[in-house]
Amino acid sequence: MKTKIKIYFDNAATTPLDPRVLAAMLPYLKDNYGNASTLYSLGQKAKEAIEKSRETIANFIGAKSEEIIFTSGGTEADNFAIKGVAFANEKLGQHIITSKIEHHAVLEPFYWLEKRGFKVTYLPVDKNGLVNINEVEKAITDETILISIMHANNEIGTIQPIAEIGQIVKRTREERKNRNIQTPIYFHTDAVQSFGHLPINVDELGVDLLSASAHKLYGPKGVGMLYLRQGVKIDSLIHGGGHESGMRSGTENVAGIVGFAKAVELAKEELNKEFKRLTELRDKLIKEILEKIKDVSLNGDRYLRLPGNVNISIKGIEGEAALLYLDKKSIACSTGSACSSRSLKPSHVLLAIGKTPEEAHSSLRFTLGRFTSAKDINYLLKVLPEIIGQLRKMSPTWQEDIVKKEIYEDKCFGKEEKV
Amino acid sequence: MKTKIKIYFDNAATTPLDPRVLAAMLPYLKDNYGNASTLYSLGQKAKEAIEKSRETIANFIGAKSEEIIFTSGGTEADNFAIKGVAFANEKLGQHIITSKIEHHAVLEPFYWLEKRGFKVTYLPVDKNGLVNINEVEKAITDETILISIMHANNEIGTIQPIAEIGQIVKRTREERKNRNIQTPIYFHTDAVQSFGHLPINVDELGVDLLSASAHKLYGPKGVGMLYLRQGVKIDSLIHGGGHESGMRSGTENVAGIVGFAKAVELAKEELNKEFKRLTELRDKLIKEILEKIKDVSLNGDRYLRLPGNVNISIKGIEGEAALLYLDKKSIACSTGSACSSRSLKPSHVLLAIGKTPEEAHSSLRFTLGRFTSAKDINYLLKVLPEIIGQLRKMSPTWQEDIVKKEIYEDKCFGKEEKV
Repeated sequence: MKTKIKIYFDNAATTPLDPRVLAAMLPYLKDNYGNASTLYSLGQKAKEAIEKSRETIANFIGAKSEEIIFTSGGTEADNFAIKGVAFANEKLGQHIITSKIEHHAVLEPFYWLEKRGFKVTYLPVDKNGLVNINEVEKAITDETILISIMHANNEIGTIQPIAEIGQIVKRTREERKNRNIQTPIYFHTDAVQSFGHLPINVDELGVDLLSASAHKLYGPKGVGMLYLRQGVKIDSLIHGGGHESGMRSGTENVAGIVGFAKAVELAKEELNKEFKRLTELRDKLIKEILEKIKDVSLNGDRYLRLPGNVNISIKGIEGEAALLYLDKKSIACSTGSACSSRSLKPSHVLLAIGKTPEEAHSSLRFTLGRFTSAKDINYLLKVLPEIIGQLRKMSPTWQEDIVKKEIYEDKCFGKEEKV
Repeated sequence: MKTKIKIYFDNAATTPLDPRVLAAMLPYLKDNYGNASTLYSLGQKAKEAIEKSRETIANFIGAKSEEIIFTSGGTEADNFAIKGVAFANEKLGQHIITSKIEHHAVLEPFYWLEKRGFKVTYLPVDKNGLVNINEVEKAITDETILISIMHANNEIGTIQPIAEIGQIVKRTREERKNRNIQTPIYFHTDAVQSFGHLPINVDELGVDLLSASAHKLYGPKGVGMLYLRQGVKIDSLIHGGGHESGMRSGTENVAGIVGFAKAVELAKEELNKEFKRLTELRDKLIKEILEKIKDVSLNGDRYLRLPGNVNISIKGIEGEAALLYLDKKSIACSTGSACSSRSLKPSHVLLAIGKTPEEAHSSLRFTLGRFTSAKDINYLLKVLPEIIGQLRKMSPTWQEDIVKKEIYEDKCFGKEEKV
């Protein structure tokens, strides 16, 4: 089966499996097929591979091995963290806090818990998509058991002040201790977009739970993990045979776990270099798009953003139409998040940063990755203005806008003859 | 990495990935890496592959495509079915029924729900491990919303009267309708052990929910599915971006799903032939073990059992010791279930069929599969009696038992001189 895509700008949706990762996985898809829970040598080989992988991943974020719980992906890790903490601690407090721009994998569990009686604060964000740490602090009550704020946003790439929120949680905990309040408060971050792309140390960030997914860092789909700080009181999401120290049951996806660890190993080696390279490519792309195409605005913070993320609103176009035109030119990108692409509702993230539904629908996201080259950027910078030009020619909104703008300019500058 | 195992008798724990399955997966671990939720061609290729896989699996069990929800495995599917039905219907009834010999992936969600206020009936089984359908019927009250009985047991291979229970559920439903009772009753079966090995038709079985796992039928680890009959009221277990018709969120494990479908396709082709071949090998193995080794008893029903399952208790030995001795002879097998091998507690299944803790600890399970040959059976039949002989020589229990037995025989038959 041949695919048409040559130029892939949707690394936030998923990344290609690095061939080195596949090579590490293959033995576990062939001869080393043992069930890691079995006692004979074939099973113990699988067990050893899993424990080695756990260590690699723990080391990467400054955690202990036993604090890494493998899951089927980021969404499961988010559900596990949020519902697990909520169920295990509901007798001590039923208030939970998150932001309006979280991934659906966080928001939906919050909605579900809200329907079941939990009180939820959905924090707003500023026009760049940043949570205000003072608002986090103000939202905390003695009933608050969980705060979940994402590390970096999947749509607009904005990086949140996680370490500062971590400090607030720490202070709250100490202050509760002094007042002899038993209710625990835990801090979860969905790091699915940042894991492998930004440096992460769980102690420096002050997080108690952190979700990650392998397929966002050139690992396989279907595997992820939850970092779970020792001592966090949590219920399992997936109960059963007692795998993963009794926290997450189900026969371990050995090949997936080994692939995840290999992906982390490669990410660690290349993180600094890639961060610099992608930031430069991203900045070039942003700068030249803004220069070459008029009436384009950047969504998200100019600097506090993921190195590979470019999200723009292009006046007068439908993101979906642009996406399909780009696809014909062998370019893959996204409008809104991959997950929201199944719906025609405007992105909740773009609405939360104050964009109109029209601006949200006119957004395009280009996310760069390990296999993005300067040549790819140049190709995109050649093709995109042409396509936008074509689309705008067909767009009644755009035509109307031009007319309106010209009328406005004429009115302002007195060039009546132009209309 | 080389593994020592040559003769694999633990197909109930996991199966080797069929090379034809791996071949089907590889394109999705290489070029076809698109996220199936995206709109461009690379993503749509992934989407098409998933929908084709869904159709293959649905056809295999007489279901509609949209009734197949992909999960990360059997354990997730069980948790989803049980907790999902419980949460979605708890306002109409809080009684749920299962059996004492279910897999932990079923029992543990029941324990968890019980702690949260649900009333649970744990049905006993007879000495062969069979649920009594009259007891199922008697256990149902107007509060019962869910019955979960496994299709075939993972440890002793016993096949339950699922179709008969399906009939009971159907009658209960009609009877409730006549009495104008709104409480729904759903029937779930954990078919992880039987799926791909026994013929399954969801309508003939009368099940509303059915769990399966790919790695039990020569597919990859980390993928499974829940059959979910249209109209069943259920809450999601993993909420998020709305994948799998909103029932199970998370970026789809495309390679895993494609591999699962390929495994089903192969299982379908080979089911009848393999059923016959494995039944013959199993029967030969049972017969000759019972002939060659004294004081051995078969656990589970002699005929109503999975074609590849042999589970025996061998007086005077520790199953774990035998397992490790067999491992040295390149034979992999299990004592109790793979999942309970992490604990030293005697198998709950063997206790439920009336075995003593000693008998449970002295159990060995040999599970045959696609790659088991007559030669493997002969090798096992050569090695096993030798090992049992060696172990019994070292076993104080066994020696003591012999002495006791001889004293008893002497007393009965008056051969005093023998002691």
